[in-house]
Amino acid sequence: MTSLNDLPLRDNLRGLTPYGAPQLHVPVALNVNENTHGIPEDVAVDIAAALAAAIRGINRYPDREFTELREAMARYLGHGLTRQNIWAANGSNEVLQQVLQAFGGPGRTLLGFAPTYSMYPLLASGTGTRWIAGDRDADFELTPRRAVEWVNRVNPDLVFLCSPNNPTGTPLSLDVIAAVYDACDGIVVVDEAYAEFAPVGTASALTLLPGRERLLVSRTMSKAFAFAGARVGYLAADPAVTDALRLVRLPYHLSALTQAAAVAAFAHTPEMLRMVDDIRGQRDRLVTELRRLGYQPLRSGSNFVLFGGVSDPRGTFEALLAEGILVRDVGIPGHLRVTAGTERETTVFLDALEALGHA
Amino acid sequence: MTSLNDLPLRDNLRGLTPYGAPQLHVPVALNVNENTHGIPEDVAVDIAAALAAAIRGINRYPDREFTELREAMARYLGHGLTRQNIWAANGSNEVLQQVLQAFGGPGRTLLGFAPTYSMYPLLASGTGTRWIAGDRDADFELTPRRAVEWVNRVNPDLVFLCSPNNPTGTPLSLDVIAAVYDACDGIVVVDEAYAEFAPVGTASALTLLPGRERLLVSRTMSKAFAFAGARVGYLAADPAVTDALRLVRLPYHLSALTQAAAVAAFAHTPEMLRMVDDIRGQRDRLVTELRRLGYQPLRSGSNFVLFGGVSDPRGTFEALLAEGILVRDVGIPGHLRVTAGTERETTVFLDALEALGHA
Repeated sequence: MTSLNDLPLRDNLRGLTPYGAPQLHVPVALNVNENTHGIPEDVAVDIAAALAAAIRGINRYPDREFTELREAMARYLGHGLTRQNIWAANGSNEVLQQVLQAFGGPGRTLLGFAPTYSMYPLLASGTGTRWIAGDRDADFELTPRRAVEWVNRVNPDLVFLCSPNNPTGTPLSLDVIAAVYDACDGIVVVDEAYAEFAPVGTASALTLLPGRERLLVSRTMSKAFAFAGARVGYLAADPAVTDALRLVRLPYHLSALTQAAAVAAFAHTPEMLRMVDDIRGQRDRLVTELRRLGYQPLRSGSNFVLFGGVSDPRGTFEALLAEGILVRDVGIPGHLRVTAGTERETTVFLDALEALGHA
Repeated sequence: MTSLNDLPLRDNLRGLTPYGAPQLHVPVALNVNENTHGIPEDVAVDIAAALAAAIRGINRYPDREFTELREAMARYLGHGLTRQNIWAANGSNEVLQQVLQAFGGPGRTLLGFAPTYSMYPLLASGTGTRWIAGDRDADFELTPRRAVEWVNRVNPDLVFLCSPNNPTGTPLSLDVIAAVYDACDGIVVVDEAYAEFAPVGTASALTLLPGRERLLVSRTMSKAFAFAGARVGYLAADPAVTDALRLVRLPYHLSALTQAAAVAAFAHTPEMLRMVDDIRGQRDRLVTELRRLGYQPLRSGSNFVLFGGVSDPRGTFEALLAEGILVRDVGIPGHLRVTAGTERETTVFLDALEALGHA
């Protein structure tokens, strides 16, 4: 049988294994920060109708400029943005990959602050960009001072700031973003995949866009819009940035089905976001209850909680899995990550954890 | 206003303009080799039902291994293939990009035979792979002798063979593929995007797969399956090749909607392919009639015809466009390319061309 080693694979890929959380089918899946609430049935009906209409013209290539979708995204984001400021792709991973293709690549450096989203180094590797992992302050927070020190040391071509940060959930202040931007000449991406779960009144990095043509703010429909299966990521930036991304995107990269489904979802924004409040409530409940159980949950502005004080993360992971509950061991010693599910799912998780005995 | 030059764009992208045929809305669009027949209504109903079901679970990430889709593709391709032989992505462009990420990249070379599919050099550039354009024999055919000469001269890490070739439509014999494979140690991709339009009885490069672990045969649903808007490309190869592609694909790169729509379409393969016969008929009619009008159409195994003897391609293009007919000027002097449309569309094109006066 032929093996990978028999093929002329690139040297930098030899010995690697594919990214991926296990895709197990369990009753309570709280491992990949999905929106476990699902979309409202009346919205599903409208999206299905939009898809049924799109399939009738599916023999034609889709709108390469996904104009209607960019308009819907600009309307949703507000802040005076127009479709000229918007770019989208199949998941924010693809958006970030395109950013690295345009502004990173061989001879260029990407700075991030570990622990952070595990795809950043993989996207860097896939585009030949050098990845440098800065570190963080206590409790995985990030101060302007530490961030700028790293920027000065590394002189990066790109900086990825995850806000709130995955897998720690920790919020990021706008001060850090502004300081990093001022300290470097490179592209600064603020990954706001979980921004909708921040406390009400939290300002988005979108407020920093005016006058900062190297600042990019990325979003996803996977989380707040419960659209993980549809693969829709996007970003807002200066129109010149979207022109740069047009140079590296594959033509027709967003299918007519993706465009139709996403436009229909944005038309129902208030209903789609109604579950966000509930998820915030479960997130806060997780923090409170995990503390009561003797764990050390971190401050979270997202739809998940990272908690420390786990003496045997692997053991706890396996014991929960045996109960049909899937959480995530993100590789931080003494910690596990859990997604805020529905009220019932959160209860099942907390009860099972309590039954395992104290931290 | 910020311009592209104000951004830290990669040097190799400076001065480029994005790929793309104009997306004009005209009555008779015969410019991008779409299947102008559309999908049968009863199939559309079934696909819409599959999409409506998929949208109910869209809050969850899709099956990262798209298992059901790979099984459907293996069944469709036959030749003893199983899902272990199959890979898919958002259009065959993405499939080819992933092949270059895994086996190409900086320091590596891709050989093709120009004129050929215009995305090959762009995909090479986007992945840092060096593109070398070999040439062709008379009438844009390619003989084993010339192909092997180029392979010996270039010693490529990858060879892309477009069969039948776009934009010329010319078929490629299996002899060329086998000879190129034997002459090099690299990856050999046969791009069979238009394979279903070959004369009945034409053998696919799939027949060459056994024992050739470096041979990859790519396909698309865009053409024969009238699925251009859904963005589904795929390939068949040794299972080790699909393992290599798992190292470079973005996780969850195929949406749940894409998977559902494609699986539903393959379930209706005979109906979906019924229009292929009709398109072949219009293609043959184009060749006959273009010759009668004094042009020199090339031999075509695809759903389009490249024809020479056009004294002023730009003028003819514009004159047809003024009549609401869009064809393609692919940049080959004295030539234009036209897609075989429905019988009515083909008639409109031929009548308009005849009315312009002889070649």
